[in-house]
Amino acid sequence: MTNWRAAAQHAIENKTKPLGALGRLEALAVDIAAFQQTLEPFVDPVCVIVFAADHGIATAGVSAYPQAVTAEMVRNFARGGAAINVLARQIDAPLEVVDVGVLGGLEPLPNVVSARCGFGTENMIERPAMSAVQLELALAVGRDAALRSEARLLVLGEMGIGNTSAATALAAVWLEMPVAALVGPGTGLAAEGVARKAALIERAIERAGRAPREPLRFLAEFGGFEIAALIGAMHAASERGVLVLVDGFIASVAALYACLLQPSCRDALVFAHRSAEPGHRRVLQELNAHPLLDLGLRLGEGSGAALAVPLLRAACAILRDMASFEAAQVSRASDAT
Amino acid sequence: MTNWRAAAQHAIENKTKPLGALGRLEALAVDIAAFQQTLEPFVDPVCVIVFAADHGIATAGVSAYPQAVTAEMVRNFARGGAAINVLARQIDAPLEVVDVGVLGGLEPLPNVVSARCGFGTENMIERPAMSAVQLELALAVGRDAALRSEARLLVLGEMGIGNTSAATALAAVWLEMPVAALVGPGTGLAAEGVARKAALIERAIERAGRAPREPLRFLAEFGGFEIAALIGAMHAASERGVLVLVDGFIASVAALYACLLQPSCRDALVFAHRSAEPGHRRVLQELNAHPLLDLGLRLGEGSGAALAVPLLRAACAILRDMASFEAAQVSRASDAT
Repeated sequence: MTNWRAAAQHAIENKTKPLGALGRLEALAVDIAAFQQTLEPFVDPVCVIVFAADHGIATAGVSAYPQAVTAEMVRNFARGGAAINVLARQIDAPLEVVDVGVLGGLEPLPNVVSARCGFGTENMIERPAMSAVQLELALAVGRDAALRSEARLLVLGEMGIGNTSAATALAAVWLEMPVAALVGPGTGLAAEGVARKAALIERAIERAGRAPREPLRFLAEFGGFEIAALIGAMHAASERGVLVLVDGFIASVAALYACLLQPSCRDALVFAHRSAEPGHRRVLQELNAHPLLDLGLRLGEGSGAALAVPLLRAACAILRDMASFEAAQVSRASDAT
Repeated sequence: MTNWRAAAQHAIENKTKPLGALGRLEALAVDIAAFQQTLEPFVDPVCVIVFAADHGIATAGVSAYPQAVTAEMVRNFARGGAAINVLARQIDAPLEVVDVGVLGGLEPLPNVVSARCGFGTENMIERPAMSAVQLELALAVGRDAALRSEARLLVLGEMGIGNTSAATALAAVWLEMPVAALVGPGTGLAAEGVARKAALIERAIERAGRAPREPLRFLAEFGGFEIAALIGAMHAASERGVLVLVDGFIASVAALYACLLQPSCRDALVFAHRSAEPGHRRVLQELNAHPLLDLGLRLGEGSGAALAVPLLRAACAILRDMASFEAAQVSRASDAT
């Protein structure tokens, strides 16, 4: 059996450049080669999938934006005017939007798959966000979306007013940390709003209890349909040998739970972007993840992940196409370490 | 007269995303729009130019690689096998290589422009690296290369065994710092080699003297032909309204001197990558520059700059193509700061 990681490492060390001089691009190339079991890795075709859903807690005032924005943004995705539309076009990737449970129900829209698990979750301050059946449905929606795609690399994103609250609750209970240590402004709350948001999330956690510490229970208590769909998509991708680019805070919380439920899925995940949201740092630590980009994004939609795609393409091309010292007749280092 | 910066800032604040949620991409879009005086910025066509030359100090043993590698790598560029060839193809940009003074003289090579200012510089430990005339020639070579190109964005790179020593000397004398505070492994020296390299560079500085502190004198004393060519290219680009992506440590030292000689050229420069070379941090501080990427590269050739091109393209597309709140009928934040 070929040891693809060792073979890729050997190949990259023989390319015409000083040892390690391409830094993280080299490690990335080796990771992808090992995952794809080849010395000629490719990430194309790339596909972007954005899961959208609403959150009951949004009615309590945890976001700078009114809840109606989720549906309005899905319509914006359908018309091609949002950031992720622009960024998907930049990387020549198709964009699929999945309505996993937007409030009010959306009319049929172009490029939007309707796969509702409800019309928004319940308010987690008062009761579990979703039932066990809804959680199963949402995981299956994500799984189906990944299976529909013919991509070698999935860029996964989310949209849902209130979903940093859901993600913060999920992070706090699994990491056994106070909400205040993880909570942030989301898409743009002022300091006062952040304190209020933290108190509301803490109330939801008090209601549900921090024990027993079970991923599926936590997902039903605090999750969002789009977060569960992300998890399902990560599982299906990993099982099929498809890479996943993980976006910011919410996608990383989904990645954390995806790995809790199915640890082998970690190998399929590449972390794209370090979000400005404070909780992201801790979640990344837990996953031993070091995102490729740090550009101060706090948008979601898969925007950070889309921006990282050219780096993955470049890493693959380096391994595939650069000349070796032998082939190019270039002298080696005399006293390199 | 239109205030393009203010107009671009206003336009980006009206895009369908929370205020500032695209982080550095937004600032980048505004910078490019202001520089190009348009609300529809474009960085294409992009062109990559790599200047190659040899350094007399390499004979004293400041590099992990034998001096012959400069010529060997230019041949590798000509055959398309180096990292910058692969990365230029990834961004669909033509690559021009300019021989500004490789040792021994190169045979005619495809895609390599011969514009020799000498056959390597002199050893700066013993005498000035180049004469005043050679410096003028090298500046003009860079200027010509930029003027030949029809690019809206130039990706500038360099190749030259020993050129971190030249760049470190130039940084040390302008920043009035000891060499030991700036010197690094270059393409791969061990600790002992770095100490030896620092002592050799310090000897060159002692010979030439730290005063008078004049950029052109320092460039002739310590510079390389490729460093001077980078400066000339930056000046010509800036005068023509062409953007420049500045690569790592050596290109940043060239940028520092380009700005010393012609301060207005700072507006044309976008800093691509934070190099692993220790001196880079200080040079970037002096330029008030915050590179977009930090991937541990230490290769040169314009590799870090080429990797940043998709980010500039994305920033321009965001400003050009995203919908506004009004056009997309998306609600605004209720209590955003």
